[in-house]
Amino acid sequence: MTKPDQSPFIHEIRVTWGDCDPAKIAYTARLPWFALDAINAWWEDHLGGDGWFQMELDRNMGTPFVHMSLDFTSPVTPRHRLMCQVDPLKLGTTSITFRVIGRQDGVDCFTGRFVCVFTQADTFTKRPAPQEIVDIVTPLLVSPDAG
Amino acid sequence: MTKPDQSPFIHEIRVTWGDCDPAKIAYTARLPWFALDAINAWWEDHLGGDGWFQMELDRNMGTPFVHMSLDFTSPVTPRHRLMCQVDPLKLGTTSITFRVIGRQDGVDCFTGRFVCVFTQADTFTKRPAPQEIVDIVTPLLVSPDAG
Amino acid sequence: MTKPDQSPFIHEIRVTWGDCDPAKIAYTARLPWFALDAINAWWEDHLGGDGWFQMELDRNMGTPFVHMSLDFTSPVTPRHRLMCQVDPLKLGTTSITFRVIGRQDGVDCFTGRFVCVFTQADTFTKRPAPQEIVDIVTPLLVSPDAG
Amino acid sequence: MTKPDQSPFIHEIRVTWGDCDPAKIAYTARLPWFALDAINAWWEDHLGGDGWFQMELDRNMGTPFVHMSLDFTSPVTPRHRLMCQVDPLKLGTTSITFRVIGRQDGVDCFTGRFVCVFTQADTFTKRPAPQEIVDIVTPLLVSPDAG
Repeated sequence: MTKPDQSPFIHEIRVTWGDCDPAKIAYTARLPWFALDAINAWWEDHLGGDGWFQMELDRNMGTPFVHMSLDFTSPVTPRHRLMCQVDPLKLGTTSITFRVIGRQDGVDCFTGRFVCVFTQADTFTKRPAPQEIVDIVTPLLVSPDAG
Repeated sequence: MTKPDQSPFIHEIRVTWGDCDPAKIAYTARLPWFALDAINAWWEDHLGGDGWFQMELDRNMGTPFVHMSLDFTSPVTPRHRLMCQVDPLKLGTTSITFRVIGRQDGVDCFTGRFVCVFTQADTFTKRPAPQEIVDIVTPLLVSPDAG
Repeated sequence: MTKPDQSPFIHEIRVTWGDCDPAKIAYTARLPWFALDAINAWWEDHLGGDGWFQMELDRNMGTPFVHMSLDFTSPVTPRHRLMCQVDPLKLGTTSITFRVIGRQDGVDCFTGRFVCVFTQADTFTKRPAPQEIVDIVTPLLVSPDAG
Repeated sequence: MTKPDQSPFIHEIRVTWGDCDPAKIAYTARLPWFALDAINAWWEDHLGGDGWFQMELDRNMGTPFVHMSLDFTSPVTPRHRLMCQVDPLKLGTTSITFRVIGRQDGVDCFTGRFVCVFTQADTFTKRPAPQEIVDIVTPLLVSPDAG
């Protein structure tokens, strides 16, 4: 599959004073929060403006997280905007895996992998990915080795 | 009305590294958050363990905030537990006013005043305070001048 | 003094699922946080990109809060971006007062007033506003009655 | 090595309305935050009251995170206190691995693994674990298979 003209999705985050701890870098627990903000923004971008809020309330669909793992390689600071690249890595029958790479000034700060399952929101029961989601996500899937 | 044996309600908060900003003190935006934690704990203590979550889901009652004001007089740090004294100051027909005083090591760090209105949760419409709440709150009211 | 061409400063915030509580609206304690984000963005915009982080670390200047008060008039949700208008209302010898109005879809959601004092960061002692700040802020001051 | 009388360290967290999202469960990004609160409390308990704040400011020692991974198995709600069991799994020359298990009402809600490195705080450079830490941690190490 070729996606010649496709730039990766980048969500920009303004890191602030209040995100930082006394070591003058973003507090560790803020980083998965930032990554989730980026994944939510990815959904908004690909679902016509609908993030988790609209998916749950208007589409009766949830995507709760069952796993996350992150490697932290360089501190995040307010000196630069935090650019979060989000890519879907894998679409299973009832789950989706995202990768989020956070960069500042061209330096990788963290890389995370996040697994969500699809649920029917009002019953909180697992369900297969809706066909609309399959159609949207499938062409966007990238290999985990792609940068 | 005499309340001879009544100690004020105190909610203890463990301030941490992650609450602090690079000035090595709790970030300002954490302080109203702490005060709300204390008010929620006050409800839990006086409503048989029910905080806002149970009030809303089990009792169909909300108490959304319409006003808050805080004065910050001394920095909050992880050096001491933050002791938050919560007192109801006023019970109106459809509203309740709380005062929260945050202290560390005997020093007043902030004082806040918070006004909430009573609502029916499922319709988000204003309603009079339930009689059970009136009965609980009335004997606890303190004068704003009391320390 | 006339400021004919001056649009107010607006800081845009993407409200998300994670900002909301089970009432499906932004949790009250998030709102002063948003207002502080907006004030920090105001500084960045008027100080050549320097927010509180750079003011403190590069300019040895702090602006800790001594007061905040907010009125909440309409719930904040992820349905619209939160547009936060920030204006300085008053510049005292050692303090500055900001007003922040948060709006969604043209509706006022909250209005807050925030008072900060100027400090020398490394000693945490009060100081007069630096002349550069006086020069920047003075022409931007608005009357509290201006919308 | 036998540790016959040793109970695991448990840090209790009061989950509130403000921690929950519109699905009425704690927002995913709150869970690593809770886990870090628990690890910080573990340090306080084992270092004579010193958490990350005191380690950094008084002992010139940092323990920044280089990795975290979490599996989420059951939703966290305000219905029960969140009991976080913290155990050190491994002590390397310059790193320490923690496991945090979050439980509510006897049900495992999440399990996380966290790797921190030891640094000299003022230079942010890696260093071997201080001997005092080695002496404290070594007898507390548990096998990853222990519940």
